[in-house]
Amino acid sequence: MTSTSLHIPLLPDVTIEPIVRLALEEDLGRAGDITSDAVIAPDAVMATLVRTRQAGVPAGYDAARLTLRLVDPDLVWETLAPEGRIVAAGTSLARISGPARSMLTAERVVLNFLGPLSGVASMTRRFVDLVGDRKARIVCTRKTSPGQRALQKRAVRLGGGVNHRFGLDDAILIKDNHIAAAGGVSNALRRANAAVGHLRAIEIEVDTLDQLKEALPFAPHAILLDNMSTDMLREAVRITDGRCRLEASGGVTESTVRGIAETGVDYISVGALTHSAPALDLGLDED
Amino acid sequence: MTSTSLHIPLLPDVTIEPIVRLALEEDLGRAGDITSDAVIAPDAVMATLVRTRQAGVPAGYDAARLTLRLVDPDLVWETLAPEGRIVAAGTSLARISGPARSMLTAERVVLNFLGPLSGVASMTRRFVDLVGDRKARIVCTRKTSPGQRALQKRAVRLGGGVNHRFGLDDAILIKDNHIAAAGGVSNALRRANAAVGHLRAIEIEVDTLDQLKEALPFAPHAILLDNMSTDMLREAVRITDGRCRLEASGGVTESTVRGIAETGVDYISVGALTHSAPALDLGLDED
Amino acid sequence: MTSTSLHIPLLPDVTIEPIVRLALEEDLGRAGDITSDAVIAPDAVMATLVRTRQAGVPAGYDAARLTLRLVDPDLVWETLAPEGRIVAAGTSLARISGPARSMLTAERVVLNFLGPLSGVASMTRRFVDLVGDRKARIVCTRKTSPGQRALQKRAVRLGGGVNHRFGLDDAILIKDNHIAAAGGVSNALRRANAAVGHLRAIEIEVDTLDQLKEALPFAPHAILLDNMSTDMLREAVRITDGRCRLEASGGVTESTVRGIAETGVDYISVGALTHSAPALDLGLDED
Amino acid sequence: MTSTSLHIPLLPDVTIEPIVRLALEEDLGRAGDITSDAVIAPDAVMATLVRTRQAGVPAGYDAARLTLRLVDPDLVWETLAPEGRIVAAGTSLARISGPARSMLTAERVVLNFLGPLSGVASMTRRFVDLVGDRKARIVCTRKTSPGQRALQKRAVRLGGGVNHRFGLDDAILIKDNHIAAAGGVSNALRRANAAVGHLRAIEIEVDTLDQLKEALPFAPHAILLDNMSTDMLREAVRITDGRCRLEASGGVTESTVRGIAETGVDYISVGALTHSAPALDLGLDED
Amino acid sequence: MTSTSLHIPLLPDVTIEPIVRLALEEDLGRAGDITSDAVIAPDAVMATLVRTRQAGVPAGYDAARLTLRLVDPDLVWETLAPEGRIVAAGTSLARISGPARSMLTAERVVLNFLGPLSGVASMTRRFVDLVGDRKARIVCTRKTSPGQRALQKRAVRLGGGVNHRFGLDDAILIKDNHIAAAGGVSNALRRANAAVGHLRAIEIEVDTLDQLKEALPFAPHAILLDNMSTDMLREAVRITDGRCRLEASGGVTESTVRGIAETGVDYISVGALTHSAPALDLGLDED
Amino acid sequence: MTSTSLHIPLLPDVTIEPIVRLALEEDLGRAGDITSDAVIAPDAVMATLVRTRQAGVPAGYDAARLTLRLVDPDLVWETLAPEGRIVAAGTSLARISGPARSMLTAERVVLNFLGPLSGVASMTRRFVDLVGDRKARIVCTRKTSPGQRALQKRAVRLGGGVNHRFGLDDAILIKDNHIAAAGGVSNALRRANAAVGHLRAIEIEVDTLDQLKEALPFAPHAILLDNMSTDMLREAVRITDGRCRLEASGGVTESTVRGIAETGVDYISVGALTHSAPALDLGLDED
Repeated sequence: MTSTSLHIPLLPDVTIEPIVRLALEEDLGRAGDITSDAVIAPDAVMATLVRTRQAGVPAGYDAARLTLRLVDPDLVWETLAPEGRIVAAGTSLARISGPARSMLTAERVVLNFLGPLSGVASMTRRFVDLVGDRKARIVCTRKTSPGQRALQKRAVRLGGGVNHRFGLDDAILIKDNHIAAAGGVSNALRRANAAVGHLRAIEIEVDTLDQLKEALPFAPHAILLDNMSTDMLREAVRITDGRCRLEASGGVTESTVRGIAETGVDYISVGALTHSAPALDLGLDED
Repeated sequence: MTSTSLHIPLLPDVTIEPIVRLALEEDLGRAGDITSDAVIAPDAVMATLVRTRQAGVPAGYDAARLTLRLVDPDLVWETLAPEGRIVAAGTSLARISGPARSMLTAERVVLNFLGPLSGVASMTRRFVDLVGDRKARIVCTRKTSPGQRALQKRAVRLGGGVNHRFGLDDAILIKDNHIAAAGGVSNALRRANAAVGHLRAIEIEVDTLDQLKEALPFAPHAILLDNMSTDMLREAVRITDGRCRLEASGGVTESTVRGIAETGVDYISVGALTHSAPALDLGLDED
Repeated sequence: MTSTSLHIPLLPDVTIEPIVRLALEEDLGRAGDITSDAVIAPDAVMATLVRTRQAGVPAGYDAARLTLRLVDPDLVWETLAPEGRIVAAGTSLARISGPARSMLTAERVVLNFLGPLSGVASMTRRFVDLVGDRKARIVCTRKTSPGQRALQKRAVRLGGGVNHRFGLDDAILIKDNHIAAAGGVSNALRRANAAVGHLRAIEIEVDTLDQLKEALPFAPHAILLDNMSTDMLREAVRITDGRCRLEASGGVTESTVRGIAETGVDYISVGALTHSAPALDLGLDED
Repeated sequence: MTSTSLHIPLLPDVTIEPIVRLALEEDLGRAGDITSDAVIAPDAVMATLVRTRQAGVPAGYDAARLTLRLVDPDLVWETLAPEGRIVAAGTSLARISGPARSMLTAERVVLNFLGPLSGVASMTRRFVDLVGDRKARIVCTRKTSPGQRALQKRAVRLGGGVNHRFGLDDAILIKDNHIAAAGGVSNALRRANAAVGHLRAIEIEVDTLDQLKEALPFAPHAILLDNMSTDMLREAVRITDGRCRLEASGGVTESTVRGIAETGVDYISVGALTHSAPALDLGLDED
Repeated sequence: MTSTSLHIPLLPDVTIEPIVRLALEEDLGRAGDITSDAVIAPDAVMATLVRTRQAGVPAGYDAARLTLRLVDPDLVWETLAPEGRIVAAGTSLARISGPARSMLTAERVVLNFLGPLSGVASMTRRFVDLVGDRKARIVCTRKTSPGQRALQKRAVRLGGGVNHRFGLDDAILIKDNHIAAAGGVSNALRRANAAVGHLRAIEIEVDTLDQLKEALPFAPHAILLDNMSTDMLREAVRITDGRCRLEASGGVTESTVRGIAETGVDYISVGALTHSAPALDLGLDED
Repeated sequence: MTSTSLHIPLLPDVTIEPIVRLALEEDLGRAGDITSDAVIAPDAVMATLVRTRQAGVPAGYDAARLTLRLVDPDLVWETLAPEGRIVAAGTSLARISGPARSMLTAERVVLNFLGPLSGVASMTRRFVDLVGDRKARIVCTRKTSPGQRALQKRAVRLGGGVNHRFGLDDAILIKDNHIAAAGGVSNALRRANAAVGHLRAIEIEVDTLDQLKEALPFAPHAILLDNMSTDMLREAVRITDGRCRLEASGGVTESTVRGIAETGVDYISVGALTHSAPALDLGLDED
């Protein structure tokens, strides 16, 4: 896992620039950092360490680096601990050096990306570790923070998870409302199969084992088993018998995830990874 | 508190449109909601209730309504429970009616605003209630989710808290780095006073009671007491004797906040309100 | 085919607004339509018909309607012939009525969307018709006009084709460069399988039947047979024996497509659909 | 012609950045190039040649270079064959070197600009060559691809053509609708002359020789002869006798253009240059 | 003049929306109008009159109306005095009615457009009136307020002036630097004539009568006589003898303009119209 | 004053980029500088001096430098005279060197920022000098040029003035309309105090001494004395007796400002600084 994580590339600037600019605009406002401008000498330089006060998995270096570049191209980021690997409390993740005013101007936005994104990666890693030797992969959902979907999805990968859909347009996911509107599982799957080409995956959410049995002959890429007990999940795995990937969802917590993994499902999706992970406690300490 | 909360106006569309558009762009992608397009009849209509599965304080109606309008002006939002008042689990916050495809297309973005923002308001309310009859007000920080500062600040107000700075430009806040760079508390305050006009407030962060005493003669609008024990805070309140507003900060949790409030400080700032509040669990149920 | 085409929904405004605004900005410039302003009475109204001078398949109504709305909300569009169905030369596709100045201001941008997009749909339909009773589906590529990917992809669907990837991020497509860099077909597929979750499809491009045989055991969602003779294609179909979807690509023209379809491949991709389709000849005639 | 073409400067980045960013956003989506990220080693470098498989006139180097810069500033473009000069099939237009992942990420957008824009330049050159020793200049229209007006207009100049209006605001062009609304040619020209200053040109479209005669005394900068036979065009040239520039328009194809030029008109406008030129077939070959 | 002025149409929203949004974003900031939100009842309504405290020529109604619409679609604008006609001090230009909070929120931005733009129109009118019965037209320059070129150009037209170039791209204006770089007037004009099509006007700036004589045979659309005395201007008019339009520029003030007009030049350009016109003193009075 | 002025930092690029881009887009249009492209050799270089033809206070170097960078990163700006210090007519403010075409392309936009912003700084300095030894500070208002608030506010600081509110959101300013709507001074102040936290200043505008007396007990940060005679102002100062900062406003001109300052008020606000300051006459001379 670790070795793979290390190769997850930074997101392209062109992809994250809109949210980084928005974050800078709302923090700098119309006049910029009036405190640093008033108090710090214009030619002062400083070096700081991005240090974590908690153990966890660092993430968000792409957003942090672009933030620094947009505030002042003279701010230099040097990575000390790579993203995606667990670090102990007290570890220095990176060293930033350059003009003191610019450093203090950029500090909060940098941390507002790094802290919460590292929180996402860290929570993902906890779930991954709880699954342990079972095959189930931890996946995130579309319950992301507005404007940060790509960043949070990447943080999940850095934590060892895999990504579900990025949006409404890149895969079919048929939910209960869709099934009701289509008049049943079969109708819904028939329509979905007719509508998409060869490179769009189809998944359907089922609440009962009967729905599961109805869905299987349509060979969807995956079936989402929603809010089922571990007994039901185990039975679903038995019925499916490897013909289709199974994803468990609903009521997944750090105390239930191992039990769910033991039912034999392939994927376990956890909304909390992106909507409720507490930020990793990071700070900028003078070097 | 409640009656005041009810008058907190929605943010203007022009202010929140950038983050709402970003959220829609990342969820709709290049092709929109391919599942609903494939499965739902084009002329189907539906009505849903935004229902909370947990007790809490609803917030974010401005972002939710703008999301609906941008997806489809025919989607109608009807408020059932006002923002800013505690509601019980199971309460319907609003009713949304209109074209079924558009409803399902907008659902996730609407909830991605409402859930986390209501989470912010709800956590704020818990802190406010813990302070109880003490005068201390709960304030948020700049540790906000990128792109959502105005929305989260408003959620804090809806929860009964008050807002600190909105950005680096609307008030002076002199921190330890600034004091070090300026060569001490007095120098820093002197420079700050010289730099701003009559409508910019000045606050300074102090770590010791000596620094507090050094700051008081400069009559800053507020002094931030950073990471002090309740004994130190009590002593700071005694020394200050009403000459300046005092804000306690650092290590504030639900179990410590009441004790801090009892020291007599005026404000207690809590970073977790905006960076680590778990989302309120909301869903869209068919009406 | 026709009945399905009729249900392909308009793209959401929020998705196409950037390119429509860009088109209006470059045509209206800094001063708007100075000819109409100088020559047409401010209160003149008019009604026009969007008429095609050639037989073809109309497309692009979403962009046309948003253009009208952004120029002047008083311009009314009434569809006379639905998108996606072949119409004869001389057919009126829609009626537009409203202020004469606004009508003439919007005219060119409206036609610059409708003409080329209908050209895409029309060329797609020609290919689809040539395939006739064979199962092969016509698919487009990423060789699209900058800024118009979603619009052109939809035009292909309206013409009876299906869509390939929308971008670099929504499916894996391993090409010759990737195979070379990874050190062969097997390595490339192994890395791809390890990198993605359950909702990302994987396709690999092969130039030889040996590569095809090497790829098949990895069970990719599709295999792209690049620039193969019909004899080779037929052999590829035989070897594959239904274990994987096959896509033919390269050298596909109106005179070769039927022969390719007869080899038994599942998909035939045609770059010309989006990069070289001549515009359908449309005009606005006074009603 | 050739020597002039060589001096047509690249468009400023600030002018083309909106359409280049839009093209990158729609191709990179939310996650970037997931294939190259999965398959290519992060530190691999490569060099490629932009090679044409057909003879033609290269164009669009400004958009190509900005695309490379926005994807990765480490990608280096080296021009091998200048824009605006005919090159043979097989010619290498440029060499691109740098990080392999970035190269493959940028490839399609680079080619989506270069191919179609070179197609515009190449078709323009064919028309220019057909006009041969006659004085008539080939001009383009406003029938351009949304978002690419400036780029396509420049491609026409690189092909040896000249540009008509860039938009509705930079010159007056009175068409049949305007004449009808104004109550005739004289009224329309009178109003136009009254409305503009000394740096806005006025052209009027006429369908008959009587209209031509009515227009001439108003001394417009040019008169557009719409859909006239070559006999009528010759007569129009005779009547005008050098008092005004004449532009022929309508039904201009590669087989008719020489005949039209021989009538003695000054300009021949060809809509197909920008709305229906097939893309020049270009590819990136490893160097 | 007056009747013409009345027909100058409002600029399209799509053209002025960027600057209007920028103005609202910088005034509303992150929290909107916190004073009105705190003090005004949410359901209060009010009606106000836009009243001028000085005589002048009103302008800018397009920007004012779009501002109101973006702040709150329930704000209603009713024009009482048309743009482009001189009004006396005390005149009510328009009536605005609607929600009181929204009214006060929009007030300043509305006036920041109306006041300065009416100032531009009013100063233009003073120059036009000073020219009186002479044929010379007053023209503006590109010395405009950043972001407001189209709005200011229109205000000049409302004041009875005519517009010069809108930007660097819509006409050729050869200045002293260009002449020097090209090696003289003839060379510069030769190059310019070779570079542009039939709808781009060419003007050249000359400092001496010798340069004027050198320029005339090239038949530019206009010649700009820079900083010449009235004696020189008169001689220039004599030399030119109607073969070309002449524009006087430099040192034009309200006290010199009549004398310049009497030399017989066709145009007099005045940079101060757009860079130094004092705002017309307007206010919003409760109705 | 002078020494302080020298330390007023440039605004961050991210803050001013929107208005600078807008200014370049409207000046370069769709085709850029067609004159320089036609007339200047592509490899010509030049050096120019930004020279002032009038005495005044230079400002706007941030916008000028960003303009140059966006037009062509090879244009080099070298400051010769610092912002914020009075310079004599004829002084060279800066030297710009680089490609001649780019220089001429950028020239007008650079001057359109520098001239008017230096005009703001220069007028501010005149008012500051007229106040002389009195304590009153000159402050600007929100009557700014749309899109340029931050730039103009900074120009005021460079002229020795101080800034009032930047927008509606960063301080409370209760005006006559608010007082009327709230039912009097006391009610309005009570509501304002209840609504804001510790870092938002409150000012109230009063027309009479009775209102002043009513306001004082609420301890607002400042009281704005609107349109009072110098006698009334003097009496207001006497009544207030240092308990609150007093700002005089209304009818402030270069001939009245000294008299107002002598009444003892703390601040004098002057709308004309930002809405009616004539541009400083600057030009680019070849070096």
